[in-house]
Amino acid sequence: MRVGIVGGSGYTGGELVRLLLMHPEVEISIITSESYKGKMVKRVHPNLRGVTDLKFSGMDELDSYDLLCCGLPHGMTMERMPEFLEHADRVIDLSGDFRLRNPEDYQTWYGVEHPNPELLSEAVYGIPELHREEIRKARLVSGAGCLATSAILGLHPLAKEGLITGTAVIDSKVGSSATGAKSSRSTHHPERSGVVRSYKPTMHRHTAEMEQELGVDAAFSPHAVEMVRGILSTCHIFLDEPLEEKDVWGVYRSAYGDEPFIRIVKEKSGIYRYPEPKLLIGSNYCDIGFEREGRNNRLVVMSAIDNLMKGAAGQAVQCLNVMYGFEETLGLETIGLHPI
Amino acid sequence: MRVGIVGGSGYTGGELVRLLLMHPEVEISIITSESYKGKMVKRVHPNLRGVTDLKFSGMDELDSYDLLCCGLPHGMTMERMPEFLEHADRVIDLSGDFRLRNPEDYQTWYGVEHPNPELLSEAVYGIPELHREEIRKARLVSGAGCLATSAILGLHPLAKEGLITGTAVIDSKVGSSATGAKSSRSTHHPERSGVVRSYKPTMHRHTAEMEQELGVDAAFSPHAVEMVRGILSTCHIFLDEPLEEKDVWGVYRSAYGDEPFIRIVKEKSGIYRYPEPKLLIGSNYCDIGFEREGRNNRLVVMSAIDNLMKGAAGQAVQCLNVMYGFEETLGLETIGLHPI
Amino acid sequence: MRVGIVGGSGYTGGELVRLLLMHPEVEISIITSESYKGKMVKRVHPNLRGVTDLKFSGMDELDSYDLLCCGLPHGMTMERMPEFLEHADRVIDLSGDFRLRNPEDYQTWYGVEHPNPELLSEAVYGIPELHREEIRKARLVSGAGCLATSAILGLHPLAKEGLITGTAVIDSKVGSSATGAKSSRSTHHPERSGVVRSYKPTMHRHTAEMEQELGVDAAFSPHAVEMVRGILSTCHIFLDEPLEEKDVWGVYRSAYGDEPFIRIVKEKSGIYRYPEPKLLIGSNYCDIGFEREGRNNRLVVMSAIDNLMKGAAGQAVQCLNVMYGFEETLGLETIGLHPI
Amino acid sequence: MRVGIVGGSGYTGGELVRLLLMHPEVEISIITSESYKGKMVKRVHPNLRGVTDLKFSGMDELDSYDLLCCGLPHGMTMERMPEFLEHADRVIDLSGDFRLRNPEDYQTWYGVEHPNPELLSEAVYGIPELHREEIRKARLVSGAGCLATSAILGLHPLAKEGLITGTAVIDSKVGSSATGAKSSRSTHHPERSGVVRSYKPTMHRHTAEMEQELGVDAAFSPHAVEMVRGILSTCHIFLDEPLEEKDVWGVYRSAYGDEPFIRIVKEKSGIYRYPEPKLLIGSNYCDIGFEREGRNNRLVVMSAIDNLMKGAAGQAVQCLNVMYGFEETLGLETIGLHPI
Repeated sequence: MRVGIVGGSGYTGGELVRLLLMHPEVEISIITSESYKGKMVKRVHPNLRGVTDLKFSGMDELDSYDLLCCGLPHGMTMERMPEFLEHADRVIDLSGDFRLRNPEDYQTWYGVEHPNPELLSEAVYGIPELHREEIRKARLVSGAGCLATSAILGLHPLAKEGLITGTAVIDSKVGSSATGAKSSRSTHHPERSGVVRSYKPTMHRHTAEMEQELGVDAAFSPHAVEMVRGILSTCHIFLDEPLEEKDVWGVYRSAYGDEPFIRIVKEKSGIYRYPEPKLLIGSNYCDIGFEREGRNNRLVVMSAIDNLMKGAAGQAVQCLNVMYGFEETLGLETIGLHPI
Repeated sequence: MRVGIVGGSGYTGGELVRLLLMHPEVEISIITSESYKGKMVKRVHPNLRGVTDLKFSGMDELDSYDLLCCGLPHGMTMERMPEFLEHADRVIDLSGDFRLRNPEDYQTWYGVEHPNPELLSEAVYGIPELHREEIRKARLVSGAGCLATSAILGLHPLAKEGLITGTAVIDSKVGSSATGAKSSRSTHHPERSGVVRSYKPTMHRHTAEMEQELGVDAAFSPHAVEMVRGILSTCHIFLDEPLEEKDVWGVYRSAYGDEPFIRIVKEKSGIYRYPEPKLLIGSNYCDIGFEREGRNNRLVVMSAIDNLMKGAAGQAVQCLNVMYGFEETLGLETIGLHPI
Repeated sequence: MRVGIVGGSGYTGGELVRLLLMHPEVEISIITSESYKGKMVKRVHPNLRGVTDLKFSGMDELDSYDLLCCGLPHGMTMERMPEFLEHADRVIDLSGDFRLRNPEDYQTWYGVEHPNPELLSEAVYGIPELHREEIRKARLVSGAGCLATSAILGLHPLAKEGLITGTAVIDSKVGSSATGAKSSRSTHHPERSGVVRSYKPTMHRHTAEMEQELGVDAAFSPHAVEMVRGILSTCHIFLDEPLEEKDVWGVYRSAYGDEPFIRIVKEKSGIYRYPEPKLLIGSNYCDIGFEREGRNNRLVVMSAIDNLMKGAAGQAVQCLNVMYGFEETLGLETIGLHPI
Repeated sequence: MRVGIVGGSGYTGGELVRLLLMHPEVEISIITSESYKGKMVKRVHPNLRGVTDLKFSGMDELDSYDLLCCGLPHGMTMERMPEFLEHADRVIDLSGDFRLRNPEDYQTWYGVEHPNPELLSEAVYGIPELHREEIRKARLVSGAGCLATSAILGLHPLAKEGLITGTAVIDSKVGSSATGAKSSRSTHHPERSGVVRSYKPTMHRHTAEMEQELGVDAAFSPHAVEMVRGILSTCHIFLDEPLEEKDVWGVYRSAYGDEPFIRIVKEKSGIYRYPEPKLLIGSNYCDIGFEREGRNNRLVVMSAIDNLMKGAAGQAVQCLNVMYGFEETLGLETIGLHPI
């Protein structure tokens, strides 16, 4: 199938190029970048040296494709989506521009009026574990936010069973690649190295996605920590009823028993007893673990992903596989590295 | 004054040696280590090269001192405290052995019967901001746990005003030096580098100190992240009444207005708007910040320290200064480094 | 083909398991580990969760295989090789035990008398770019040292042309995984984090391999730096004749023009103008670059690899492919990740 | 004494402010920054919160001072020095603008014609270990380059004795703070984290300083590695005569025996046997070690510093102490931290 990538110079775009180059059913027909138009893709993504000699095109060179994947910065796809839909039968958008169903949420969380609200109701939120059937038929799939993906996958089984009655506290730790490829004072190495930076302790935009998909109240605070790729979300839930750990096992098993990209990680010994993003670099897995504190009836759920894989480009390829009826793991079989 | 250090080969012991060597009123009379007995202190603490030619002694060489500081591993000081009190008028213990007032808490949290329960009631919990007057007169001061210090200092003003009515969720991020100087598989560099490791998501021992000192229910989960020194504790509190941020300012200012080692960090712009442990390496400050989320009446309190300074040796020297009537900042004036 | 892995619990062993699980022509028939016998392989290599349910066997359970790959610690394979050769038609050894052709070199560099000197003359040094034809026919292939591989591949084209007449200064920077899976004081995270540690500035054992394979005098000094995987070797060569850069290009192109795993990296602009190990994590490439300093007729050659891939397990699989007539890149197509 | 700091918003300027705030004989009378004019110094250097309420002034507000310290970017001080000398009796310049004695060297290495060549002959190169007496009397002291300082201090004793007859190969590893406070693609955390980046393998400007001060041919290649502060320079020297290690000891002892900021680090065991920049963060020491390789008569000299301390601001304060007859260690007594 012929796939075009609009906005391929960022980190998500680059990861998508890497994955689609390895995908046996996909031919990348165009990669656009307004800033790097005419330059070799491998100049921007140096890991692709020796692998591809593709060049960046301009957006004005778009032709017709089976699928367009959009990796533009937030706010740019909102306006242009109707145009993109003329160039392709189906679109996967990796920005935040089509994640929320309710146009008013864009006012509240993004401070903008959405220019294409009718497309919002059509768009499907791109987490196959929650919306597989809708994705299969969707014309427009909206990639989920990276922090949102980790929290939603971690809590979805509990939320679905109505076990989260109070507010879920979600405390996330995230690597620097989630900020994107643009440098700034806050990502300058001497300032970013070794931090534990609470950069948006309240009102982070991904909260809206979490509440939309889980149907529960979310109190979310992300922290930038010293790593490039990876997210660990620690979710603190206070249960109404004293669920035993084996019951929690049951809930997760029934929700995720057949999921190819979910692993329940909960071991009695060893140093990787709980989910660890370090083990997932380059992999599309979401590792989920939990532990119950009996004294206060708290359930701690930990959920780890690679933000550029299951949190962005990997999940987009998973959606592509669902949309086109390929084996869901096709092109995503990479095993994580250890140690790394 | 003549000070002896019992157990000086670990990280806390080494930091104490460094600080006391710079303290104008202190003479270090002995440093013990059973493993390194007879060896130069600078062989174990290579930062002290060119600074001291002291050697480690054995515990059997203990004489009489004004003050003994104990840096032994947890569980060793419990038994020996009566003996140490014969060698010195006063003792500061940096282990966890005398932190809890209630002997039963040692059963619950440490799984041991405390051999000297009568000393537990005498011991004073070594956070001057909470117990300055008792520390001044104390014979036995027990250094606070590093994770506990960050959480307690962060929440104390709110707890004192009765503003924490529900369970406080405390999600901490901590550097590798908190594990101590002993190597293991979990601290092996290829395994520890770049992790976000939830190593004890429930029932961590420091919970007991937090609940004792704050008088509130604490739901605590620490995470090992990529740094050597430093702790950030993020505390999620749900307020009963809709406190405005200026009211919260008032609460913190009234509690800490004159404290030499507390800084309230809350700025509108810049990349260090909230507390950041990276800025505190080598410093005795505890930086505290907060932000309110109106929609769910959550207050996020962030508290940062250097675990070996305000979280251990620095706070011990602060206690020493209080105990002996010195200026509280004496020997602790080091300004943090930036960038680092 | 049926492959057995002897000594599969270390980092090289684990990487080999990961690669062979993805290799379409290989079936892993046994993985031994005396320490973890009976335990699941994924308990030791947690990246393999969900990928394999193999268990470790004891060495006493060895049967017959097409190929045995040995990942035992240095010094253990020397004695046992005759035994291993009874269990398999061919052997690839990843330790240092069969790398040197001259038995006396084992005295000089390893301080031991080699127990099987006759096998030394049979063993082929496992760098396909230098010994492809011998490897094709070899019964015993000895994996090259990781630091040696980077230096040898970097300098081989120059050495072959007789352009290195004086001593080559080789200054290498290496990640912590090269030390192996065993923890110690020197790899304890607080001690290893952020170092630039010159741990063996002279007489490092890999010098012997470099001199053997290049036929030049090598002055080698490795440094442990802050990374888990990766090696950059910077080689300083003083040329007798004033070779132009385009001549150097010619030398490298003629030596490596058709090599699937060598990339010449030398760009005029950008931040990855020269070889960078960070781009190679998980990849089998060796990136080589150079720059000439006219004023002193120095040629600086930089050579980067992933120590566990091209420096160990990846190169072993490359040798396997050569030995059995498979496509040389089979199972090694992974593209490096960026950013990481 | 009244000291002014011109260009105080960069990393060197900030470090100078930190040090001079702790210096008992210095009063900081002005700190200029054109970009941050009118803003609190602690907003740019957040480690100074609670320590100073100074604000940045503009350069047009300069008055008269005993000493001006210039921390402007390279190229800006060249022109303005005559003006600065009207505002102060003496000047210490921390840029590269007055380091080279020969105006033609500015053509060769910096590509500019120096506008004030007469001041070049007056300026003294600011390494007290080499030029103490000239610094004492100098009107204009030029701070040495950070990489140059490490190499020069490492090799000076050998050079002085005429023991370096061939070209000295100097392979340095340096942290990200040496690049300065300005962010760019190359310092963007995802791109800079974990690199071993050879960014200027030949013709680096600091070569000129090394050759000027040592009087030997230098073949210099720096590498950016994963740390914020610190430099290790590994110098490979081929000796004409087979010097024994005890002779080398003698050479270093006779050159540096009384130096307060030089430590010879060479131990038989332990993990810090050789100089390690990690131990020097925040300290003004230069640690030097060496090892001889008999087989090729190579001497490996390792030299470690904190680039912002002994490599910049610390050494400037040391020069200040020399210039004004203070104890040379005044305000520089900070002991390095361990672990860090």
